Amino acid sequence: MKHLIILMHCPDQKGIIASVTNLIHDNYGNIVYIDQYVDRVNDLFFMRLEVLFHFKTKSMDAFKEAFDQKINQVFQAKSNFYFKNKKPKMGVMVSKYDHCLYDILAQYNTGRLHCEIPLIISNHRDLEAIAKQFDIPYYHILITKESKHQAEKNQLELLKHHQVDFIVLARYMQIVSKEFISNYPFKIINIHHSFLPAFPGAKPYHMAYQRGVKIIGATSHYVTEELDSGPIIEQDVVNVSHLHSVENFIERGQDLERLVLLRALRLHIERKIMVYQNKTIIFN
Amino acid sequence: MKHLIILMHCPDQKGIIASVTNLIHDNYGNIVYIDQYVDRVNDLFFMRLEVLFHFKTKSMDAFKEAFDQKINQVFQAKSNFYFKNKKPKMGVMVSKYDHCLYDILAQYNTGRLHCEIPLIISNHRDLEAIAKQFDIPYYHILITKESKHQAEKNQLELLKHHQVDFIVLARYMQIVSKEFISNYPFKIINIHHSFLPAFPGAKPYHMAYQRGVKIIGATSHYVTEELDSGPIIEQDVVNVSHLHSVENFIERGQDLERLVLLRALRLHIERKIMVYQNKTIIFN
Amino acid sequence: MKHLIILMHCPDQKGIIASVTNLIHDNYGNIVYIDQYVDRVNDLFFMRLEVLFHFKTKSMDAFKEAFDQKINQVFQAKSNFYFKNKKPKMGVMVSKYDHCLYDILAQYNTGRLHCEIPLIISNHRDLEAIAKQFDIPYYHILITKESKHQAEKNQLELLKHHQVDFIVLARYMQIVSKEFISNYPFKIINIHHSFLPAFPGAKPYHMAYQRGVKIIGATSHYVTEELDSGPIIEQDVVNVSHLHSVENFIERGQDLERLVLLRALRLHIERKIMVYQNKTIIFN
Amino acid sequence: MKHLIILMHCPDQKGIIASVTNLIHDNYGNIVYIDQYVDRVNDLFFMRLEVLFHFKTKSMDAFKEAFDQKINQVFQAKSNFYFKNKKPKMGVMVSKYDHCLYDILAQYNTGRLHCEIPLIISNHRDLEAIAKQFDIPYYHILITKESKHQAEKNQLELLKHHQVDFIVLARYMQIVSKEFISNYPFKIINIHHSFLPAFPGAKPYHMAYQRGVKIIGATSHYVTEELDSGPIIEQDVVNVSHLHSVENFIERGQDLERLVLLRALRLHIERKIMVYQNKTIIFN
Repeated sequence: MKHLIILMHCPDQKGIIASVTNLIHDNYGNIVYIDQYVDRVNDLFFMRLEVLFHFKTKSMDAFKEAFDQKINQVFQAKSNFYFKNKKPKMGVMVSKYDHCLYDILAQYNTGRLHCEIPLIISNHRDLEAIAKQFDIPYYHILITKESKHQAEKNQLELLKHHQVDFIVLARYMQIVSKEFISNYPFKIINIHHSFLPAFPGAKPYHMAYQRGVKIIGATSHYVTEELDSGPIIEQDVVNVSHLHSVENFIERGQDLERLVLLRALRLHIERKIMVYQNKTIIFN
Repeated sequence: MKHLIILMHCPDQKGIIASVTNLIHDNYGNIVYIDQYVDRVNDLFFMRLEVLFHFKTKSMDAFKEAFDQKINQVFQAKSNFYFKNKKPKMGVMVSKYDHCLYDILAQYNTGRLHCEIPLIISNHRDLEAIAKQFDIPYYHILITKESKHQAEKNQLELLKHHQVDFIVLARYMQIVSKEFISNYPFKIINIHHSFLPAFPGAKPYHMAYQRGVKIIGATSHYVTEELDSGPIIEQDVVNVSHLHSVENFIERGQDLERLVLLRALRLHIERKIMVYQNKTIIFN
Repeated sequence: MKHLIILMHCPDQKGIIASVTNLIHDNYGNIVYIDQYVDRVNDLFFMRLEVLFHFKTKSMDAFKEAFDQKINQVFQAKSNFYFKNKKPKMGVMVSKYDHCLYDILAQYNTGRLHCEIPLIISNHRDLEAIAKQFDIPYYHILITKESKHQAEKNQLELLKHHQVDFIVLARYMQIVSKEFISNYPFKIINIHHSFLPAFPGAKPYHMAYQRGVKIIGATSHYVTEELDSGPIIEQDVVNVSHLHSVENFIERGQDLERLVLLRALRLHIERKIMVYQNKTIIFN
Repeated sequence: MKHLIILMHCPDQKGIIASVTNLIHDNYGNIVYIDQYVDRVNDLFFMRLEVLFHFKTKSMDAFKEAFDQKINQVFQAKSNFYFKNKKPKMGVMVSKYDHCLYDILAQYNTGRLHCEIPLIISNHRDLEAIAKQFDIPYYHILITKESKHQAEKNQLELLKHHQVDFIVLARYMQIVSKEFISNYPFKIINIHHSFLPAFPGAKPYHMAYQRGVKIIGATSHYVTEELDSGPIIEQDVVNVSHLHSVENFIERGQDLERLVLLRALRLHIERKIMVYQNKTIIFN
């Protein structure tokens, strides 16, 4: 039995749903999840399906071909197919902060993150012990102003070698270059420790404290060229008051960060996110 | 019986609390509320007290004098005294949006806002019917680019004439001038329809929609010279998703706006706010 | 142009979505909203559609007939059709609390509740002035232990006379009888001032205070025979602490109550709720 | 330098704050935190202080003696003194669920929980590997219906031997006996996976799903004789909808559980909680 996830989008038009569901039924598929979203401003149609098939891989190719002919070509659609039981490979990049890394590895170890983690890359040695504790290969690649370009080349080599599908920047604290990003478009997930677009860039907790806000937040987003401006996946907030110091902001915020990042990773891993026009559609 | 509220602040130093509580006891006052906050970064001490006195106004003056001598002068303190049963007068300024105005008037009418509302001022006639419904004088003062200076003079005259203690901009939609603000420093409360400092200025719901945020907010703050940058009193947020249009953002946001503004007004009316360094201390 | 809302449910089976969307296309309808939910535990299928039709009422009947033949009969479905521009009539029942009533009438008056309010019924005279302020007929029907049966008969007569479609108990504070409910099954919406199923029945704020909870809530639900146990439409919560008195609980709670009730009313009015097995499905 | 935390309570009366602060100043202490709470219903006074002393332990005893004479005896007060730098010892009891344990150990390992963890006790072997991963002694004590009494005796022996100050039941899934509790009154912290008092006892997620609630929660509380009825320390909630299965409830709930438990542990460890009348006062 194959459990297929289909993500598709096309210009909005009549008959898409009927055509897709008819095609699936004709191929003996059983739709166990279907959800659509129509962007009425731009007249775009988005759909996510989960389908159970009871035949072999050969026929699977036949289905894909049929889908291409009868859906993609007819409706000018773009479609992606994923097998649910195939775990994506997640590369982890960290710097010195351990809270997100610990949460990711604990969830991973207890089977709550349905991915593989072939490696952790860091520009520092600080978190090597944690990697060891969870038995994950840890690569230390030093980054200096001069070595950055070469360092990224080395990182990419490692990531490619381990056949990484997507990357999490678990408080990586380094700006990644345009070239690096172009290797994993909408496949690099960052956690920013503010309620974006408030307080982008460095030291958001200090800026929030300075401004006297009554609520702080965390934002998980796909990394794009412009700093902290990629499509937002998940956000959450927590109350603060004048009683809290910057250190309290950080403590409260770090609990948020790890939750918000985890939720974003789960959504990505479960193929519940579609990106367009620098926004995300979350089928949840 | 007098119910006195005292707000005081001074450089942090030993013996303040003991001195103040001793003085109150020596004057037969009964402390029914006491709360302090110490800003350890700037070494400043803030305190809010509620005290019940069982003597007459004459002695009240004596107490104030004693407080001035034994507290203010000794500790370089600044203090404000308010009688709890004296309702402050709130001037309301609106434009065309009715949701905040309706909430304020309904709460006022049902005795949940412990203030008086002597007048509503607007640059439009749209909400006059609501004012009538609640029997509050409504003054229409047209504002054009040319007439703005004179319009503000007329507004101030009206507000002074009605002996207004503080002003609420209940979605007033006009920028008030530096001169206007200087007449009511930290006494003009605005509601901004975003989670500041995200999306200051015009059309925050549209900007939030454009950015693809997953949470929208509302912020109530004191008006200062710099637009949407005054001390924040209260903030709250509500979840949104790709499913929501700008109109949905506005609908959800307006419910927030009226709640956040109400809470800020209650805090101000109950003398629970102190302002310093462009932040608020909320004794709640 | 007709804007039709269709709510349907049936045993889950293959081909439903394709059949329905095909039928609508064949009848020149344009689907502007479609959402489904499948209860995998009970194998039930639920769908909400909004469809724009460009023909006259006569053909509307033809469409309904076709829907009955090709969908309801084939799939053992039950379907309800509503025209979006036809405002439902909401009867309001209150007792002495004014906060929910004020909110409903203000939203109604400003066009944010897309219903008609033909009457307000109360067992007290206290809120008559508010009804007058908003120009809504107010009927005072006294309820005593002895008169309750007759009082409900009188209430029903009034409600039927005004052709009320559904009823809101806006803090009505009276238990309605089984007979009364049977006249409006899943059409009576109540607001309960607790986070159900915690603290059902009388004085929930006092019970919450007594228990020392750190969060209080409000719940809007359809009224069924068993007290405070009907299908939940909407819930929300707010933080409290040891600093808050019962009176503070009530103040904070009342802001919640009116918001939660409003959201439930909007959902009901916009036909976004389906009820089954004492639960609600909210298409939002 | 000594950093002392004082928790005290007594019948409310005039002059307490002045007396305490005077005494501290007379003993060359520097108050770095002071907060009070007065329960006006029961006329009780509660205070938490943090004081820096610059003298040696010998004088510390003298201060305590003076406090006893001039405060406790004069005001019928009860006081507890804690040295901030002395980490309390926390015993951990678990069953088969790993999410709370992982969070506790990760936070502990990264220095964010200021306690010592001398041992983990479990009635199952499942989590032994995690204990090993973090290098904490793990004791497996089987519990059957017959062996329960003896098992608890063995547990207590271990806890006493390791000089445990308080205990966390990190999803321990066993009811602890009255006798066990009496050894650690208000020193056993439990996490219950519901928004108490809703859904006490077994399978709260299933009951919440069954009831069709729109929000689920988690509650951390001190364990008392009556099941799930002890003083509540911390609660939090998360939205759910008809789209979520019981499994989704559990997934979302577990993230809450670990956060809510962590916050409660931090509050307890930092001596910010006072208990009376089955409620908590949280000085935060």
